[in-house]
Amino acid sequence: MDVDLGKLFFCGFDDFNEEAREVIQKYRPAGVLIYPGVLSKEYLFLDFMNFLSRNGRFIVSSDHEGGQLEVLKYVPSFPGNLAAGKVDPVFTGRYCEMAGRIMNTLGFNMVFAPVLDLLSEKGSAVVDLRSFGSDPEVVASHGMEACMGYFKGGVIPCIKHFPGHGKTADDSHYLLPTVNASFEELWREDLLPFRRIFQSRVKTAVMTAHVKYPAVDDLPATLSKKLITEVLREKLNFKGLVLSDAMEMKAISENFSVEEAVRFFIEAGGNMILLDNFRDLPVYYESLKKLIEDGSIERGKVERSIKIVDEYLSALENRFNSGLIAEVAERAIECTRMRKELLGREVVLLVPSNKNLSPADTTGDDYDLIPEVAKRFFKVRDVIRYDIEAGPDDVDGELIFDFVVNASKNEQVLQAHLSLPSDRTIYFIIRNPFDAKFFPGRSVVITHSTKPISVYKSFQHLLGRCS
Amino acid sequence: MDVDLGKLFFCGFDDFNEEAREVIQKYRPAGVLIYPGVLSKEYLFLDFMNFLSRNGRFIVSSDHEGGQLEVLKYVPSFPGNLAAGKVDPVFTGRYCEMAGRIMNTLGFNMVFAPVLDLLSEKGSAVVDLRSFGSDPEVVASHGMEACMGYFKGGVIPCIKHFPGHGKTADDSHYLLPTVNASFEELWREDLLPFRRIFQSRVKTAVMTAHVKYPAVDDLPATLSKKLITEVLREKLNFKGLVLSDAMEMKAISENFSVEEAVRFFIEAGGNMILLDNFRDLPVYYESLKKLIEDGSIERGKVERSIKIVDEYLSALENRFNSGLIAEVAERAIECTRMRKELLGREVVLLVPSNKNLSPADTTGDDYDLIPEVAKRFFKVRDVIRYDIEAGPDDVDGELIFDFVVNASKNEQVLQAHLSLPSDRTIYFIIRNPFDAKFFPGRSVVITHSTKPISVYKSFQHLLGRCS
Repeated sequence: MDVDLGKLFFCGFDDFNEEAREVIQKYRPAGVLIYPGVLSKEYLFLDFMNFLSRNGRFIVSSDHEGGQLEVLKYVPSFPGNLAAGKVDPVFTGRYCEMAGRIMNTLGFNMVFAPVLDLLSEKGSAVVDLRSFGSDPEVVASHGMEACMGYFKGGVIPCIKHFPGHGKTADDSHYLLPTVNASFEELWREDLLPFRRIFQSRVKTAVMTAHVKYPAVDDLPATLSKKLITEVLREKLNFKGLVLSDAMEMKAISENFSVEEAVRFFIEAGGNMILLDNFRDLPVYYESLKKLIEDGSIERGKVERSIKIVDEYLSALENRFNSGLIAEVAERAIECTRMRKELLGREVVLLVPSNKNLSPADTTGDDYDLIPEVAKRFFKVRDVIRYDIEAGPDDVDGELIFDFVVNASKNEQVLQAHLSLPSDRTIYFIIRNPFDAKFFPGRSVVITHSTKPISVYKSFQHLLGRCS
Repeated sequence: MDVDLGKLFFCGFDDFNEEAREVIQKYRPAGVLIYPGVLSKEYLFLDFMNFLSRNGRFIVSSDHEGGQLEVLKYVPSFPGNLAAGKVDPVFTGRYCEMAGRIMNTLGFNMVFAPVLDLLSEKGSAVVDLRSFGSDPEVVASHGMEACMGYFKGGVIPCIKHFPGHGKTADDSHYLLPTVNASFEELWREDLLPFRRIFQSRVKTAVMTAHVKYPAVDDLPATLSKKLITEVLREKLNFKGLVLSDAMEMKAISENFSVEEAVRFFIEAGGNMILLDNFRDLPVYYESLKKLIEDGSIERGKVERSIKIVDEYLSALENRFNSGLIAEVAERAIECTRMRKELLGREVVLLVPSNKNLSPADTTGDDYDLIPEVAKRFFKVRDVIRYDIEAGPDDVDGELIFDFVVNASKNEQVLQAHLSLPSDRTIYFIIRNPFDAKFFPGRSVVITHSTKPISVYKSFQHLLGRCS
């Protein structure tokens, strides 16, 4: 059973590096939430997607809600739920189907949306534009269309924040908010959108709120058996996947120990623990393991959760995965020999300038990104931009990476490249593959591409990290 | 017949403004090519897509090839054809299906790709990384997978540049290149990928090369009856849509008059004239009209072309259109009264600073873009960034646009907004809609959104340009 405990975790990744690879391969969290730290470096995102597709099955999610919270440049920016709530819900459904279709095409199969919280006049900054409005009926009809749209588009919606985060002005990122409404009021208002969506039987997951509802329980919803088991499971008959909101948020982490948070959530009937930071997974994982071993958490509860997670994992097969782009970059590279010992070494980069490109050429930005990519593997001592029409000047350095563009078209340019110290220079042929034969006996890497993903993969090749 | 002549034109749009609207509505070009000038301002792109969806049917294309030429941020960057040509063609097909699916979801139904030109050692900068390689068989198999992938994804591929642009080191953007190969050589090499794709009967359009092949004809392929009618139509049996490359490219425009270019292309058997710049359409349109009227172009040829274009137009129905996002933005806006007379007026903008946002809030960039959007309609005299927690300082100006964020949460902030001169200030409530009731009797526009598309639409509303 030990090996399956990762199924109870959903982890956020703000980077994709060796540490992330190790955490995933060791603990095998079933859920992966991809953050801007990865998304803003597309080569990392594509490599991450490729890694995931090679390492089994994952629920891959984004918190791209559209509107106030947008993290995917691939989905056109949306006015947001508050604006959507002012128009026909049919538009909401069409937008969510469009967004879902793009996410699905990239390799996502879940989205942490739509927000079903009601907007109240004293509403918090956390809800604000993310709400479809104040009227429970309006939120219900838009929320329903949103869920159906996302599902048709190819991602499972995770509705949030159960049972409703709208009636508080406080932000659970910073403290534990309280909602002083009666259960009847919650049922009539905040819970209405959830009730409607469950009745429709469209497939969703549910994320719990880190908010306290004293009329129901003294524990926050995330940790409350009354709210998760009695209300959500029994009264509302929801059989699907229940996620916590991120456990590191101060509402939980400053009021409960890791052990308490894990035990209360699983005992309350929750299935997957969301962690903002994948680096926290070992601590939470060991805590869960210990709690099961010492009998503080019922084995049956864990087994039922694993079954639910498995059911979502198998419902979610993706035909598409943008990781194939990293695969193409990797396979297209030719490298004369591996040099594992170069990892972390000090290097001087000779990078072409991005002037005088043809109108059918948008690769200038690619050259600009080479130093950033190199810094992931090497200590970059200096970056020298050289003119493609003249070739690089003489340069000093213990290790030189020369990024060669169309050198063989001009004898003088070729000589400039060749006069670099042959024992300390590695040539990256990033454009014209015919250049390669003019560098006999030199260390050469041919990428067949100027793109950051190809440059990134060429470093991995050089360092012996490609398969 | 006059009204249908627009069907013979495919126009590039580097902006979407009143002029573009007028050209489209007056001349009704059937083809629309969207350039970075529009794509880099997403609010323009979404509004353009919405305009197109409201104005009939268009072939909407992008020249996003993946690799060397990429213009859509919505499609993840690809290493490019040269790298793809080094790996299994199955990856090429999968990438193109993915790219096509995203384009289709946005509202595109054609893509000016794949490039089928062969890479030669003396290959030009125009082909370069855009080629699948030097081996005609490799280019054919990748080209075929690419076409099938795009089509499955939902966009019709337009293969280029017929009969092959690879055997020249010159760039037809700047001059008219010549390829001195025999027809047998062209047939065996450059034409092989085209032949294979036509045999497979996958639906494509064809773009012609502005290149001269003296072994076949003294005219460039774009203007050559021998190449378009005798080779492409008769020998290769291609019945589909034939586009010229952009007629403003120097290869054509410096060697032929507008009349010659139009007459030769249509007489040669071409169907749609591609114009780089929509502002050139009136001249080319009038020239075509005159040539038909004076009998220099056969009416039958024009009618056949219109039939082919109609057939592609009806093959291309899109279920998705990102223009719906502009529609939502527009419909969500509430505006107290229109002020048409404000167009082009000098204005001072009070824009919130983007500090202290919640972790679930990525709207800071939206505020930064307000001045750029405003400049499309007004003369922006000054932009003052104010602290959301303090409200704006007193400000002088004949016309003031105050972008209000959560003013009613704090009495002092509200007073700061209210003390602006009431006769010269228009309040844009871009966040908390409850703010609106605290500005009785003032000019107020409520957007329910901070997004550039919503701010853009709010200006259009104010100026009486929304329906």
